[in-house]
Amino acid sequence: MAAVSNEVAGQLWLALGRVEGLGVRSAQKLVEQFGSPEAVYGASISALEASGLARGVAQRIRARDGQQEAERELEAAEKLGCQVIPFGSAEYPPLLKQIADPPLVLYVRGDASLLARHSVAIVGTRRPSAYGSSVAHKLASDLGQRQMVIVSGLARGIDSAAHRGALEANGKTVAVFGCGVDVIYPRDNKRLAENILSSGALVSEFPLGTSPQPENFPIRNRIISGLSLGVVIVEAAEYSGSLITARLASEQDREVYAVPGNITSPQSFGPNLLIKQGAKLVDNWMDVVEEFPAEVRAQLIPAVSASSAGEAVTRSLFEPSLSGDQKAVYEALRPDKATFVDDVFTQAGLSQPRVLAALLELEMAGFIRQLPGKNFVRKL
Amino acid sequence: MAAVSNEVAGQLWLALGRVEGLGVRSAQKLVEQFGSPEAVYGASISALEASGLARGVAQRIRARDGQQEAERELEAAEKLGCQVIPFGSAEYPPLLKQIADPPLVLYVRGDASLLARHSVAIVGTRRPSAYGSSVAHKLASDLGQRQMVIVSGLARGIDSAAHRGALEANGKTVAVFGCGVDVIYPRDNKRLAENILSSGALVSEFPLGTSPQPENFPIRNRIISGLSLGVVIVEAAEYSGSLITARLASEQDREVYAVPGNITSPQSFGPNLLIKQGAKLVDNWMDVVEEFPAEVRAQLIPAVSASSAGEAVTRSLFEPSLSGDQKAVYEALRPDKATFVDDVFTQAGLSQPRVLAALLELEMAGFIRQLPGKNFVRKL
Repeated sequence: MAAVSNEVAGQLWLALGRVEGLGVRSAQKLVEQFGSPEAVYGASISALEASGLARGVAQRIRARDGQQEAERELEAAEKLGCQVIPFGSAEYPPLLKQIADPPLVLYVRGDASLLARHSVAIVGTRRPSAYGSSVAHKLASDLGQRQMVIVSGLARGIDSAAHRGALEANGKTVAVFGCGVDVIYPRDNKRLAENILSSGALVSEFPLGTSPQPENFPIRNRIISGLSLGVVIVEAAEYSGSLITARLASEQDREVYAVPGNITSPQSFGPNLLIKQGAKLVDNWMDVVEEFPAEVRAQLIPAVSASSAGEAVTRSLFEPSLSGDQKAVYEALRPDKATFVDDVFTQAGLSQPRVLAALLELEMAGFIRQLPGKNFVRKL
Repeated sequence: MAAVSNEVAGQLWLALGRVEGLGVRSAQKLVEQFGSPEAVYGASISALEASGLARGVAQRIRARDGQQEAERELEAAEKLGCQVIPFGSAEYPPLLKQIADPPLVLYVRGDASLLARHSVAIVGTRRPSAYGSSVAHKLASDLGQRQMVIVSGLARGIDSAAHRGALEANGKTVAVFGCGVDVIYPRDNKRLAENILSSGALVSEFPLGTSPQPENFPIRNRIISGLSLGVVIVEAAEYSGSLITARLASEQDREVYAVPGNITSPQSFGPNLLIKQGAKLVDNWMDVVEEFPAEVRAQLIPAVSASSAGEAVTRSLFEPSLSGDQKAVYEALRPDKATFVDDVFTQAGLSQPRVLAALLELEMAGFIRQLPGKNFVRKL
């Protein structure tokens, strides 16, 4: 029964989305007011008008506008093995529900349960440098190995590299389309889309058969960021959909990350600009994870084949390169108690600049840690 | 008379710096307490002890310790045409005076007046990539053209590129040494040092003839940052004197800037790390100048041959690439009054994501400006 009722609800959500003159947000408000899409379609014209609708729109709802279309759409979806998840459904992705303008319905092929998992988006230019492609691939692979779902847009370039990186690490990946989930765009990503489908998911808010109109892509981008805890921009030129995704992510209160690059590379203009504007600079996967809430981090299982990128490098204290100053300063510190910088000057018996230099060197080598207020401790 | 008395004062400052067991900071405190270096040397042992000195140090001061050495040093400096500027002198660089541990004296060859001008330090690794060298050269040239004095350390690599960039733009540059100003290190920078000397200055706190001991360089670095409004780190590996300079700059309340680079480049590790820690990302000279106080910016004369790097790109509004959405949004804005984003939605008659996309595109193209609180205006 629940399945049937869900199906009806799904169909009516779909139908409301087809009513001429009724936007996504107004449709959602109507459903909130009346309690369900069924109740909206069951309401009188005067009740609909009282809720603020124009008379014409109210009449079209009363005339069951959109319902036949929705029925045909659901049949087509079923044939394709495509789920239709309405806004009201328990399966609707929880993070996406929080954005200002969530889609009324999502079409999902593949494993829809991934949409409720911790995800990070990796996006960027369709014309990356070799550097950008390899960084996107590596980040997606490192994060994918650690149970993060990698969300991207199946575009050429960075998006494709991100999907591939996740797949090659046996991670999960989700592609969000700017066309129907039965339309593969760009065509040369057909094989990649099939690979994503076999272990991940293809997602769109656009009806089946929708062609990839350019204006769909910025709209689609809010779903990429909306599904994700954060968005990593790998390379993006000055005019770039990726920068739009970054802004949407920031407006959705999602983390915005950017991978820096040479200032002489046009593709790094976008990420460098975002970092100036406050995006977090990322040079390894841990920079991404660090920003997540503690409970999310706890759920990210360390990969068996974890790469050493970004992990604390442990070195022997007695390696010959440790200078006399460094030893004197290290010996002035304790592992169990913070030492204030002025006491380090006294105890090390060196000039202030030499102590400061040695402190920095020891900190960078991972031997000591700086605490707030210019206090220092040995690392264990 | 003033010249003679300055000379005596300079000599006694020098002499105090040679007293065994008396550090730079204690010497400064003594001069503050007694009023002048002459008064310190004229004080009784008991007065010196009362000010906190150990008996041995007080006795050495009373015995005129360091004075002969200082006299010889001043004679040698005069022969070399080298100025000796004591801490108490009116010629002592005002910014350097503010740091916690300013040098007691500065040896300066060349144009000492540059040390009072607005300066920025550009430093980095001795083993840069081609990218790093060319960025350092370009930044130094762009800033040097605009009346900024470029301070660096005459090291191979980034330092040399910065000095050369300033010189080639007919800008002024200052090299701070970790050895005596009569000792050129590295030797293969002899020609470069001569070029700097002919229009700029060579500076050190170390006595003439001091050899370039490795431990001198971190000490020297505090002068590089101490002379400057800010420090730009162009490339720096994980263990790097440049990162020490950056930390010293930050402790001296100077701006810290870093030029990002590919995360796959070891030389960009340092700058990328600094940016993560809060350094300002720089991709053109204006990023540096922006952080300076308004009165400093007003004094920077625009170069005649200003490059267009970073400057607002003006484009025709009617270039064919302006989309329908962009036009609709642009027309919803006014040049004389901010429009709140919600009003843009209404007036443009487009969906929220499309409006947001168009706003971002117009902003990036330089047609509009975002104001605080999600308000937008047309640019004139």
